[in-house]
Amino acid sequence: MKVNTSRLRENIETNAELGEVQTPEGRGRTTLTGTDVDKDVRDYFIRQLEEAGLSIRIDPLGNIAGRWTPDTADPTADAVVAGSHLDSVPEGGMFDGPLGVYGALEAIRVLKESESDLSRPVEVVSFTEEEGVRFKNGLLGSSVVADLRDIESARQLTDESGHSLGDELERIGYAGTDTIDANEWHAWVEVHIEQSTRLEDSPADIGVVDAIAGLTNCRVEFVGESNHAGATPMGNRRDALAAASEYILALEEITSTVVQERGEPAVGTVGEIHVTPNAKNVIAGSTELIVDVRSVAADAIEDVLDPLQESQAAIEAKRNVRASFDQYRYTPPQQMAERCIQTAISAAEAEDVAYTRMHSPALHDTANVATTTETVMLFAPSEDGISHNPREWTEWEDCYDVTRVLAETMRRLAT
Amino acid sequence: MKVNTSRLRENIETNAELGEVQTPEGRGRTTLTGTDVDKDVRDYFIRQLEEAGLSIRIDPLGNIAGRWTPDTADPTADAVVAGSHLDSVPEGGMFDGPLGVYGALEAIRVLKESESDLSRPVEVVSFTEEEGVRFKNGLLGSSVVADLRDIESARQLTDESGHSLGDELERIGYAGTDTIDANEWHAWVEVHIEQSTRLEDSPADIGVVDAIAGLTNCRVEFVGESNHAGATPMGNRRDALAAASEYILALEEITSTVVQERGEPAVGTVGEIHVTPNAKNVIAGSTELIVDVRSVAADAIEDVLDPLQESQAAIEAKRNVRASFDQYRYTPPQQMAERCIQTAISAAEAEDVAYTRMHSPALHDTANVATTTETVMLFAPSEDGISHNPREWTEWEDCYDVTRVLAETMRRLAT
Repeated sequence: MKVNTSRLRENIETNAELGEVQTPEGRGRTTLTGTDVDKDVRDYFIRQLEEAGLSIRIDPLGNIAGRWTPDTADPTADAVVAGSHLDSVPEGGMFDGPLGVYGALEAIRVLKESESDLSRPVEVVSFTEEEGVRFKNGLLGSSVVADLRDIESARQLTDESGHSLGDELERIGYAGTDTIDANEWHAWVEVHIEQSTRLEDSPADIGVVDAIAGLTNCRVEFVGESNHAGATPMGNRRDALAAASEYILALEEITSTVVQERGEPAVGTVGEIHVTPNAKNVIAGSTELIVDVRSVAADAIEDVLDPLQESQAAIEAKRNVRASFDQYRYTPPQQMAERCIQTAISAAEAEDVAYTRMHSPALHDTANVATTTETVMLFAPSEDGISHNPREWTEWEDCYDVTRVLAETMRRLAT
Repeated sequence: MKVNTSRLRENIETNAELGEVQTPEGRGRTTLTGTDVDKDVRDYFIRQLEEAGLSIRIDPLGNIAGRWTPDTADPTADAVVAGSHLDSVPEGGMFDGPLGVYGALEAIRVLKESESDLSRPVEVVSFTEEEGVRFKNGLLGSSVVADLRDIESARQLTDESGHSLGDELERIGYAGTDTIDANEWHAWVEVHIEQSTRLEDSPADIGVVDAIAGLTNCRVEFVGESNHAGATPMGNRRDALAAASEYILALEEITSTVVQERGEPAVGTVGEIHVTPNAKNVIAGSTELIVDVRSVAADAIEDVLDPLQESQAAIEAKRNVRASFDQYRYTPPQQMAERCIQTAISAAEAEDVAYTRMHSPALHDTANVATTTETVMLFAPSEDGISHNPREWTEWEDCYDVTRVLAETMRRLAT
């Protein structure tokens, strides 16, 4: 397939300019759901869909679909759909999301321009609020489209100022009345940047993603006793930060052991910690931390959490502290469909693009879509693995390669 | 000695009302140096000094002295001085500082009213900025009075908004022109609450403090690599929070070992930690922590810091992180004068107040004064050891007892 590289690049660059913010690390992109910037970004996307001659639908959550139904296709057949998201984290990069949306649009334009004989409609979808920055629920649009969440409850989510997502979408003119339903899709393909260095470290140019790791987050709080750091003998302490330190190291050791014993990737992280009162001369009275455990195997996550609970109990007993444990989020691992994986692989081979099979350690909208339809993801390399950062970068050649493979994958799936 | 209990109590309670703040834990006291509340607190103190007929001096740092020179005394003789401080931590308690200031004033009033035949003047002193909350330098007033620090550099210290201490003292009318110089003191006695539970756990009613622990603070920063928590395998991580956790536990273990091996009190604490970026799905790129080590023996502090440096190097090597270590503060341990200690002990015996010799694990202004003159401290029990907290409490009977012993100690020292 021959993609129009300058058109794809112009789409991604213009989209980045609309959300442009200057940062100490260079030009970043901030596109938060329901803001004026989001309206500009959506307006530009809609214009591209119109220019491409696609049939546009917008649902009440602002999810946007653009469909081409070839003359050769059964218009009632389930469509082959591709896409991603256009929102960003604050001061994020230009590729995370937009590459998947504009790559899908470019693929459809190429299929349309080459008058491919498809038996199914093809469609590009841009999901609302993937990052979950403003309304605190990531992967929101896809959760509604995959029927995992009620659309009204999603519209009623509020930001920190109390504005509801529904009201903000009305305000910018993107609360539609159409239906976008993943149950009616024949297959889904998402192109995304890798956000890690495995592709960079491998001879492959792109990744064919066969699974998305599951994720759990747990809030753990150790409560000890806040006391004067000078006046409390070592033996009389109930130090909540020392307890948390022991717990952080236990998570690290348990996860590493699980990886070794199972030979399967799993990661366990404490990246966020809140110490009270956090004063140099006061023994910590309480320490809250967030545990983040991920694996492509659901039982590997259990294999980490079970001994972690034992460690917690041992720390409580040894240090005379109390701990609370709240597993407030669990997203199970999702396997991509082998049929779609094999189609993507043969498309990569046909396009002469070196690929590797890999899993995605990060969550994507595809994890939601995979609960109702067959899916696959394609990864493009991230320079130095940097993402959620103005320095996020993917070589344009890689963008073009992954888009060619996407177009060929969609063609094969829709034929 | 017979102290006027209602007068002492009224002084402390009125002082507390002037700095009153409501908190979830009850009524607290916030008196930050150079604020309008500080002016009210000082105005009230000055009125009490005037009513007691004392001769008042205020130095350019706002330290306040009130002197009684008995007819029987040589007015040029070095004075016997007692006092403490009237500033507080935010939402602190009512006794930390004010008990020592108003206890000293009450002792002098009693000596004056009983027309004691003293051969030396007696004086009460209230030091500026003991807590170091607003201008970030604790024990500030005493460091100037003990000639450990230049008064102009102290006046030029600024708060977070850029206001200098000197300007703020001018503003509230407490930048004086008098001299207060600990080199001209015959002896110094400070009454303070214990801020720990050793007195509560002992049969003694008060503590006679024979040493103040030395203190060092070190800023340690571990720098690793910030990366996506999902996409970075356990073996590829340079996790600055895990490194800091290992370090916190090393400090705890090393200090406990030093205490056991030397049989001497030492404490080591990390109570303050700053993680960057402190996000649940990002491996910590850097972690700064403050080490606080104290002991009455200077070489015990070294016995902690030396192996701690070895631990730091081992963590750097093992985890491929870099660490910086900045020992930015060192206050050596201070021994009180045996002559003053014995005087306080005989005073307690004369007043029939049960006492115990003990050291102070916390720093006090007396640590500065002890570098130039002979000193002793008296501790009153703290309920549950709680201090720097609205729940800070000392029984009024204990306040009266320690003030009686203070008055008798001053009488003996000034005779």
